[in-house]
Amino acid sequence: MKKFHKALSAQEIIAITGGSWLGANDVTLDNVCEAIEANPSSVVFCEQERLISQIAESPAGLIITNSQFSERLGARPQLIVDTPYFSFMRLVSYWLSLEQKMQNWSIHPTAIVDPSARFEGEVSIGAYCVIGANVSLGKGVIISESCSVQANTSIGAESVLHPRVCIYPDSVIGKKCILHSGVVIGADGFGYLLLDGIQQKIPQVGNVVIRDDVEIGANSTIDRATLGSTEIGKGTKIDNLVQIGHNCVVGEHSILCAQVGLAGSTIVGDYVYLAGQVGAAGHISIGSKAMVGAQSGIAASIPEGGKYFGTPAIDANSMKRIIVAQKYLPELLRDYQKRLKEDSHD
Amino acid sequence: MKKFHKALSAQEIIAITGGSWLGANDVTLDNVCEAIEANPSSVVFCEQERLISQIAESPAGLIITNSQFSERLGARPQLIVDTPYFSFMRLVSYWLSLEQKMQNWSIHPTAIVDPSARFEGEVSIGAYCVIGANVSLGKGVIISESCSVQANTSIGAESVLHPRVCIYPDSVIGKKCILHSGVVIGADGFGYLLLDGIQQKIPQVGNVVIRDDVEIGANSTIDRATLGSTEIGKGTKIDNLVQIGHNCVVGEHSILCAQVGLAGSTIVGDYVYLAGQVGAAGHISIGSKAMVGAQSGIAASIPEGGKYFGTPAIDANSMKRIIVAQKYLPELLRDYQKRLKEDSHD
Amino acid sequence: MKKFHKALSAQEIIAITGGSWLGANDVTLDNVCEAIEANPSSVVFCEQERLISQIAESPAGLIITNSQFSERLGARPQLIVDTPYFSFMRLVSYWLSLEQKMQNWSIHPTAIVDPSARFEGEVSIGAYCVIGANVSLGKGVIISESCSVQANTSIGAESVLHPRVCIYPDSVIGKKCILHSGVVIGADGFGYLLLDGIQQKIPQVGNVVIRDDVEIGANSTIDRATLGSTEIGKGTKIDNLVQIGHNCVVGEHSILCAQVGLAGSTIVGDYVYLAGQVGAAGHISIGSKAMVGAQSGIAASIPEGGKYFGTPAIDANSMKRIIVAQKYLPELLRDYQKRLKEDSHD
Repeated sequence: MKKFHKALSAQEIIAITGGSWLGANDVTLDNVCEAIEANPSSVVFCEQERLISQIAESPAGLIITNSQFSERLGARPQLIVDTPYFSFMRLVSYWLSLEQKMQNWSIHPTAIVDPSARFEGEVSIGAYCVIGANVSLGKGVIISESCSVQANTSIGAESVLHPRVCIYPDSVIGKKCILHSGVVIGADGFGYLLLDGIQQKIPQVGNVVIRDDVEIGANSTIDRATLGSTEIGKGTKIDNLVQIGHNCVVGEHSILCAQVGLAGSTIVGDYVYLAGQVGAAGHISIGSKAMVGAQSGIAASIPEGGKYFGTPAIDANSMKRIIVAQKYLPELLRDYQKRLKEDSHD
Repeated sequence: MKKFHKALSAQEIIAITGGSWLGANDVTLDNVCEAIEANPSSVVFCEQERLISQIAESPAGLIITNSQFSERLGARPQLIVDTPYFSFMRLVSYWLSLEQKMQNWSIHPTAIVDPSARFEGEVSIGAYCVIGANVSLGKGVIISESCSVQANTSIGAESVLHPRVCIYPDSVIGKKCILHSGVVIGADGFGYLLLDGIQQKIPQVGNVVIRDDVEIGANSTIDRATLGSTEIGKGTKIDNLVQIGHNCVVGEHSILCAQVGLAGSTIVGDYVYLAGQVGAAGHISIGSKAMVGAQSGIAASIPEGGKYFGTPAIDANSMKRIIVAQKYLPELLRDYQKRLKEDSHD
Repeated sequence: MKKFHKALSAQEIIAITGGSWLGANDVTLDNVCEAIEANPSSVVFCEQERLISQIAESPAGLIITNSQFSERLGARPQLIVDTPYFSFMRLVSYWLSLEQKMQNWSIHPTAIVDPSARFEGEVSIGAYCVIGANVSLGKGVIISESCSVQANTSIGAESVLHPRVCIYPDSVIGKKCILHSGVVIGADGFGYLLLDGIQQKIPQVGNVVIRDDVEIGANSTIDRATLGSTEIGKGTKIDNLVQIGHNCVVGEHSILCAQVGLAGSTIVGDYVYLAGQVGAAGHISIGSKAMVGAQSGIAASIPEGGKYFGTPAIDANSMKRIIVAQKYLPELLRDYQKRLKEDSHD
């Protein structure tokens, strides 16, 4: 259950979601939850057949649903809309935005901020943060406790760093980005040259550039470029424990699921979908709108809109046919070996 | 070598392990180690043929072994038991529990603890921790340095957080849990809705509930639910760098090895074993006592007790037959192509 | 672009790289970058055909190139060498070493250092670090902010810890190691014994030993041994999000790419190359100079110099032949099923 500081009335809710109200409208609502946790101040939603009776029996104060389910939900206040889940989530987002307006803009006295750091308006910096020389923070940036933002890094307006994010020097973070706990931006790319029996470190003197509206999941890592920049395009969303190698360039509005790994210099287009645990070789490109199935190993470039699967990844339909055929492989082999034997007896 | 603060006598050791003592019993022992590191105060164990001569030649002060190996280990003090490794480990556990009793219960002066936080007895909070509003800590909780425990989180008695654990708001951690360094509990689930060309963030307002006796390895991440709870059942053990997606429900006493990833809303039963780097699709269920081989990709539900392997994971014996047959596939293909050619010449 | 504090003259640069200078030699250079970012104080390198015109048109102050490309790069100062990239990187390394000499050796007043810790010469310890009892730091060790170095750990001369590294007790780190942000050394190995329906924790009382010149990427984890030591050999390089299980022994000068996972007690030789997302079962050995392709699952030991690929990993050439043949598998199956049908009609 998520309880909000400010309760909302029926009128306030309709103003956000639209739709038509059924039943008593003198309710006051202050939380959202699943039916099983509901109390008379809860808003729940109903658009799945299998949950109707559970919701009908719950004490929830308001059910957001559609005309199809309404009748079976009993005499409770209902808000009838076309897309209940979507309207519910719009309401939750509104409620969360009210909470954010209550943000206390302050720099904790234990935060160590280099005197050369610049803030373009109100910012919040949590306890035990270390903010380096020439760092620039846009208006409304929120940095939670125990973050490191190293020298010459800039963070755009309204971006949020959760606790224990580490940003190495010279990084550029856009506006309205969300970096979850444990994210590491700008660690050295992984480059060595074997010389005289020693893995000589290739200096990594590029940086990382992350555009606006990017979200990066907990403990993910994005390495700095050897030269130039590792880039993440506007609106791209990255899940937990993802690795982006040096000099990768990821396009806009793409989705990289958990534990994906991109080797160095991989180019990823816009609206690409990489499912969980996908790996991509370096120095290849993955075309815009490509979709790649979970655990695939991308060994060569993928054209725009390609649907790929497998290791090495090939056209997903071809791979599915191979997977189906594989089940008959032991039988095929027995047949072949039988024929061989017969031939040798002829 | 692990050296303990308190030395033990022969009597004290027999009291813990049982068994019969051979040789001089006036020894004093204060450490456990491998034979190669041993000194006259060391306890070692012997139950492997290949290590007998190394152990026999070591200066160890006590060898825990069985009657089968005893004779060949020379005139050293020996403790003869049925299961040497197990008895040895019971001794180590006892010794470790003595160390824990020496725990200094204190809240470091640099820990920032919200005045609304509640402690049910003695707790230990390390340097540079940040403990949020309405956090509740059970008796004997140990929080190492630099941890974040955010608002409304409760941690049950005798749980241990290693350095730099981050727990987002509203989380519930059971009793006697161990969270290793870098663990992130409760970061936002990975959910977006593509609308007008933008990946719109679906608000994540559920929480994480971890039951008693759960251990979670370094840098693993467990996401909060969209609504409701992501749950880890009692006694389940999770290795390093594991990702648990939003709304997953993992049962009791299961084992999730390193780098396993569960997509959102995966249901895992009790006593399940997922080997390293296994991935599971979302919205499926993995039955109790299922065992899944390393790197498998679980694309569909697995029945209770199923032994599965491969990507996509199928019955492990079927997959093994396919793997064996695959080695003959190039030969099968040559045969087929030869027949095709002969047919075209007929 | 990486701008350095100290500008260099033509003479100073030739002294480092060798080669012959073409054009005006009264330049002063203070940064390295890609051609697209260059200014008149920039050093760039050219050894790729496709970049010649971009570099020729850039305002870079010095181009390091070879005699083959020189003519087509116009009237700019050039440094002609045999291996432009290598000479360029040598210059960058030199420049970085000058920056390191400007290191301010100091212990931040907020660092909490146990009085029993010993320093063998000048060291740097950043804000909010916690350094435990009996820790020993070699000359020139640099520990960035918010690191935990727990009791009885030793760190060799000139090693660098980036922010938020956590080292558990009793660890040994060699000289000139680099540990990136979020690395966890020495967390408990993953070992349980199912007894009376409970996963009993096997105590983990060994340690981790890391030899000289090892680099470990962001958020990687290396577990302590159950007994004895988990070891990483001299000069081995480990990328981000890698998991090394308890009691593994990794040799010298090996390369472990991102998201590799080694189960417990895996033995890895010298000069081994494990590509991204490779997993290895426990209690096996991977011979020196072995190379294993991305995402492979190593289920059995690999001989010295073996080139392996696939899950389970086999000889890479055999696996490639299988992968090629797999594309024909659906056709083979159709042929087989057709013959079956014909036979049944005979």
